[in-house]
Amino acid sequence: MREAFHDQLDSIFDDLAGICRQVETAVRDASTALLTGDAEIAERVITSDATIDTAREKVEDDCFMLLSLQAPVAGDLRVVVSALRMVSELERMGDLSVHVAKIARLRVPEVAVPDEVRPTMSQMAEVAQDMVSRVAQIITSKDVEAAIALGRDDEVMDRLRRQSFRELLADEWAHGVEAAVDLALLGRYYERIADHAVSVANRIVFVVTGQQPVDA
Amino acid sequence: MREAFHDQLDSIFDDLAGICRQVETAVRDASTALLTGDAEIAERVITSDATIDTAREKVEDDCFMLLSLQAPVAGDLRVVVSALRMVSELERMGDLSVHVAKIARLRVPEVAVPDEVRPTMSQMAEVAQDMVSRVAQIITSKDVEAAIALGRDDEVMDRLRRQSFRELLADEWAHGVEAAVDLALLGRYYERIADHAVSVANRIVFVVTGQQPVDA
Repeated sequence: MREAFHDQLDSIFDDLAGICRQVETAVRDASTALLTGDAEIAERVITSDATIDTAREKVEDDCFMLLSLQAPVAGDLRVVVSALRMVSELERMGDLSVHVAKIARLRVPEVAVPDEVRPTMSQMAEVAQDMVSRVAQIITSKDVEAAIALGRDDEVMDRLRRQSFRELLADEWAHGVEAAVDLALLGRYYERIADHAVSVANRIVFVVTGQQPVDA
Repeated sequence: MREAFHDQLDSIFDDLAGICRQVETAVRDASTALLTGDAEIAERVITSDATIDTAREKVEDDCFMLLSLQAPVAGDLRVVVSALRMVSELERMGDLSVHVAKIARLRVPEVAVPDEVRPTMSQMAEVAQDMVSRVAQIITSKDVEAAIALGRDDEVMDRLRRQSFRELLADEWAHGVEAAVDLALLGRYYERIADHAVSVANRIVFVVTGQQPVDA
């Protein structure tokens, strides 16, 4: 009984890692569309989101099946509920990538990000993608040290967001209100992707150790 | 056993309604702070959020206790997991109210919302507060018709957000980039509060009928 439980749980975590890799692709493609003004890539992110939603439903069904048939208690119960929460957060990260892609699509054939703020916005995109990529590995490896390290790196995203605000609120800003509003919202979306990545990593710490990370 | 289960479940739903009323206060106070530039009220929203977080922890603990001790299956299991999801969303609505209050506080002694866009922003604030207020009643009454009606009213918020974008992107806009960015982010926060309100209402439909609303 317990062995069957753990086999099924492993399969759920494999699915979570798979969804996380799909989210990584969505973040990468949305960022590419944003920085190049490529409508086709933007469209792909938007339509591919349905695949993530379907994968989420499967994980949810599997978790409910496990709860119903095995009635886990204590630590095992919390692990299954953590999986349910992780899959919601991963789906949400996919939705946020769609928001990025939609801003990209809205500005085609222009590029939403003016040249002089491109370094900051590219870095936000890279940090977000890197965090999602590391979360996929953390889900597979259950590496607690890596999960805790990810939490600390969230500060990099916060710093980039403050930098982005300084740029678009500077006296020299010459790109008008529309570009500034785009960048403020994009900053918000990348920041939320990073927040969710940290949250998923923290849940892995909990799954492995039974404790929340001290800084969470 | 089943009677004890349903008594405990009722108590969890009472707590959810209570948290929702705290969120309603947070949304109302944050909006007042925003529209009047009252730093004290803004501060109150920010510090009171800890109470919502504590109440959420109690609901989570009670749900885990119920899952562990009663090992519900099928519909009962889904109701408890729905409660866990609702409490996460309610807490998130509290966080979004804090974001509104922080923008208000940042602009004190000024008011973040320029006069000519005040009607739209006031309406967004009112719609958000009204939706949260109705969700609190829906959690208590388990009124499926009211829950479905709430989902339809989300369109009002979407319309207001588009209106707000038109205003701040108009040629006549004379309040600069900072005010526009504030308004774009505020619009996003109110929209997310409304989204979560609809989602909580849909979960009540599911709790009562075992089905998701057709439009969800």
